[in-house]
Amino acid sequence: MPDRSPIAGRDVVTLDTFSPEEIRWVVERAQRLKREPPGAPLAGRSLAMVFFNPSLRTRASFAIAFRTLGGTVIDLEAGRDLWPLEFREGAVMAGAADEHVSDAARVLSEYADLIAIRSLARGLDWAQERRDLVIVSFQKHSTVPIFNMESVLDHPCQAWGDALTLTEALGPPAGRRLALTWCYHPKARPLAVPHGVSTMAAKLGLHLTISHPEEYALDPGVLAMVQRTAEESGGSVRLCEDPRAAVEGADAVYAAPWGSIRYHNRPEEEAELRLRYRERRVTPELMARAPGARFLHAMPIRRNVEVDDAVVDAPTSLVVPQAANRLHVQRALFLSVLGM
Amino acid sequence: MPDRSPIAGRDVVTLDTFSPEEIRWVVERAQRLKREPPGAPLAGRSLAMVFFNPSLRTRASFAIAFRTLGGTVIDLEAGRDLWPLEFREGAVMAGAADEHVSDAARVLSEYADLIAIRSLARGLDWAQERRDLVIVSFQKHSTVPIFNMESVLDHPCQAWGDALTLTEALGPPAGRRLALTWCYHPKARPLAVPHGVSTMAAKLGLHLTISHPEEYALDPGVLAMVQRTAEESGGSVRLCEDPRAAVEGADAVYAAPWGSIRYHNRPEEEAELRLRYRERRVTPELMARAPGARFLHAMPIRRNVEVDDAVVDAPTSLVVPQAANRLHVQRALFLSVLGM
Amino acid sequence: MPDRSPIAGRDVVTLDTFSPEEIRWVVERAQRLKREPPGAPLAGRSLAMVFFNPSLRTRASFAIAFRTLGGTVIDLEAGRDLWPLEFREGAVMAGAADEHVSDAARVLSEYADLIAIRSLARGLDWAQERRDLVIVSFQKHSTVPIFNMESVLDHPCQAWGDALTLTEALGPPAGRRLALTWCYHPKARPLAVPHGVSTMAAKLGLHLTISHPEEYALDPGVLAMVQRTAEESGGSVRLCEDPRAAVEGADAVYAAPWGSIRYHNRPEEEAELRLRYRERRVTPELMARAPGARFLHAMPIRRNVEVDDAVVDAPTSLVVPQAANRLHVQRALFLSVLGM
Repeated sequence: MPDRSPIAGRDVVTLDTFSPEEIRWVVERAQRLKREPPGAPLAGRSLAMVFFNPSLRTRASFAIAFRTLGGTVIDLEAGRDLWPLEFREGAVMAGAADEHVSDAARVLSEYADLIAIRSLARGLDWAQERRDLVIVSFQKHSTVPIFNMESVLDHPCQAWGDALTLTEALGPPAGRRLALTWCYHPKARPLAVPHGVSTMAAKLGLHLTISHPEEYALDPGVLAMVQRTAEESGGSVRLCEDPRAAVEGADAVYAAPWGSIRYHNRPEEEAELRLRYRERRVTPELMARAPGARFLHAMPIRRNVEVDDAVVDAPTSLVVPQAANRLHVQRALFLSVLGM
Repeated sequence: MPDRSPIAGRDVVTLDTFSPEEIRWVVERAQRLKREPPGAPLAGRSLAMVFFNPSLRTRASFAIAFRTLGGTVIDLEAGRDLWPLEFREGAVMAGAADEHVSDAARVLSEYADLIAIRSLARGLDWAQERRDLVIVSFQKHSTVPIFNMESVLDHPCQAWGDALTLTEALGPPAGRRLALTWCYHPKARPLAVPHGVSTMAAKLGLHLTISHPEEYALDPGVLAMVQRTAEESGGSVRLCEDPRAAVEGADAVYAAPWGSIRYHNRPEEEAELRLRYRERRVTPELMARAPGARFLHAMPIRRNVEVDDAVVDAPTSLVVPQAANRLHVQRALFLSVLGM
Repeated sequence: MPDRSPIAGRDVVTLDTFSPEEIRWVVERAQRLKREPPGAPLAGRSLAMVFFNPSLRTRASFAIAFRTLGGTVIDLEAGRDLWPLEFREGAVMAGAADEHVSDAARVLSEYADLIAIRSLARGLDWAQERRDLVIVSFQKHSTVPIFNMESVLDHPCQAWGDALTLTEALGPPAGRRLALTWCYHPKARPLAVPHGVSTMAAKLGLHLTISHPEEYALDPGVLAMVQRTAEESGGSVRLCEDPRAAVEGADAVYAAPWGSIRYHNRPEEEAELRLRYRERRVTPELMARAPGARFLHAMPIRRNVEVDDAVVDAPTSLVVPQAANRLHVQRALFLSVLGM
């Protein structure tokens, strides 16, 4: 393992742009940081967090991770602290937007050493949404590294934290069996978590089984990338509609609710469809098909709707360590991206 | 006086759970801290402030107290930075709540060394409100100490700061006469301040006279505790409807407006009732019944409605030192609860 | 140049209260700070930012400037973190205001070493607006220095940063020709930037040409002060309706949109009037009248409405350095006002 950061200056937008070695290097660094006093290596450095959508765990864990290392964080909320932004190049800005993203990104780059963005779906067609224009525009125009705090397509810091959690619980994750299983939620939730977790599993050589109702497939482009990546790393990806079969013999079960891309922007039809699957809940009976398996969920959890209390609160549940590890992985990422 | 903190690891939710010695120990520590350069003893430590209701003095004084000692503060607003919370154990979460308080509290405990909560009345019956479910739930589920930044029942940091202010102005407060006097306000204000101040007075052995219109009694459970406590500490509690008699010969007059528990959740009737008492204002004439008495108020003040300018701006007024002392007492509390 | 700060303890509300020597002293200090590691000279110090109106650049640059020097910042939003304020002395506060500005200012003075205020127009007559009552009230009642983060009348930190930017680009600005030119914007924007820039230019002895449609004159009181000041410093002020003539031979062109004082509070008429001037845009053709001239704008920029892309993105454009220099000038101001 190299001593010097292999990811200095890089954007953290998806795990797809990192090699398995780089991902493991950061996980190991996070493990070391957990045992060390934080010190103040980020004194004089600053992070600008820009929220186009609200957040709890990410806002709190980003801010605390950066500040307890001595750094400065500012927290900007689009629509309150930011002018409405124009994203089209060369636009005649006579409409609602007061500032062009190129100007906002260049100015924030002068004020901050890192810029972190949260930006979810904006009511466009899926083909448009999946281009993640907000974060891609900041990547294009900023002169400092960009962190993705959850976009339409990905949630890399969640996935990287999960890699740390799996490593702590199971040892090196390569070759382990992970079941990613769709569960019911009263709302159509984003796809960033299942995308990010699948990418991470593929990169690290896990055997991944994905189980969801047929209308709830992951984005085809992401799925193709995940399958290609798994092949390269010695892992595998299997789709399996029946959650009981999917979970069978797994080392870890990752539950997540997500909306249907096929019904994107048809919320009433999607809700009606989703209701048909409202019995897809992670129960102790389902978990019994994978004796000893760890349980993961990115939170927030609708208890007894997505997952039974008995599963969330079991000794095999990793949901709280998952949230805690966000802090540690992000510390490792901040330092590594800043070349420290 | 012990050198080591006698309150390490404790929740600061009401002064009722602290002994007179512990309360005085913190007051003395705050006095010492005022004379010392702050240093950075809280470097690497973090405080999560969670606001279910807005705040000025408390938000500012908590954040500045913690940060100027080198610590990290995050400021979370329920309904913006937090998911809507479920408080019932075992609930099937198919309604409005997206996250269970047990999960939110456990996760925040991983991110922060202390959690501070502001949570006022929520439109329930008084019998429900007075249970202070929000703060009690965080106490139950968090693994780090909880600070009360004002709940339905109490405002311990205000009261603890007032103990410091009284000690600075009058010397050791035991045996001193404090008149807590209800004053008119166009709105029905919370009871946390009069409850907290009464508890503090009883703990420290003051002779407390409480004066209010008959429909504006304090919570009976709190009042019974205050009376019991005063007996134990050599103080006393006297109720006295006439404010002029109540103030007679007092060493300090504490003015506060508060709503009627009897009319809780009947705002129109309560407002009509309250209007009948709109002449209950602290005037120089009233203060003249207690020559030399100090004047206290927890702010904000409706000048010339609750209290005349001539009283607020008199040399005997302690309203600004009261606000300033919040900072110093909270510094002493943070360090002491963290075992430093 | 003196070694000790000549502006310790001063309010930073307008450049009009500073001498040319003091303004240059701070510019030179900012230039030195750009080359030095920040250190933590503000450890234990705190800044309270109070926003009566939203902000991007100012909020971010104030917070980062103060914090990366080791200080603590709290960010208070009126109407969320502040009670509604009463500004009239001796008022009977039975209306909407819950707290008097004298109390809010005195309390914040106990919590913070500096108070910074943003407060724009409030829907009053111009004669009232121009008195800048909010910031003037804080100046009157606080016991610590006040910073203006943009008021109705002025935006001194923008102007001071622009002085740094002009100095870096052109050398000592005295004797240089600056064209301040009105440009169209779909909204009536504040006058604080053109006022502040004009004051700065006059103080530093520039030859200033101001160009605007006839209904868009600057505030007569400000303009008279600017003319008087220019005479004293060896500069000059010229009004010139035709932007082409105004720009002719300038060393720098500063574009800004602003509303009509004459039509203040008559938004529909003002909008109709303004539309007549919608062709007043800074184009490469206009800039060609001042070969080599630098281009300035305080941002946000409505690209291709106020200014063409080709001007904003030209090598002669200083818009990004202007924004960056806010940070450096504010650092110099914080330290100097605090007597460091």
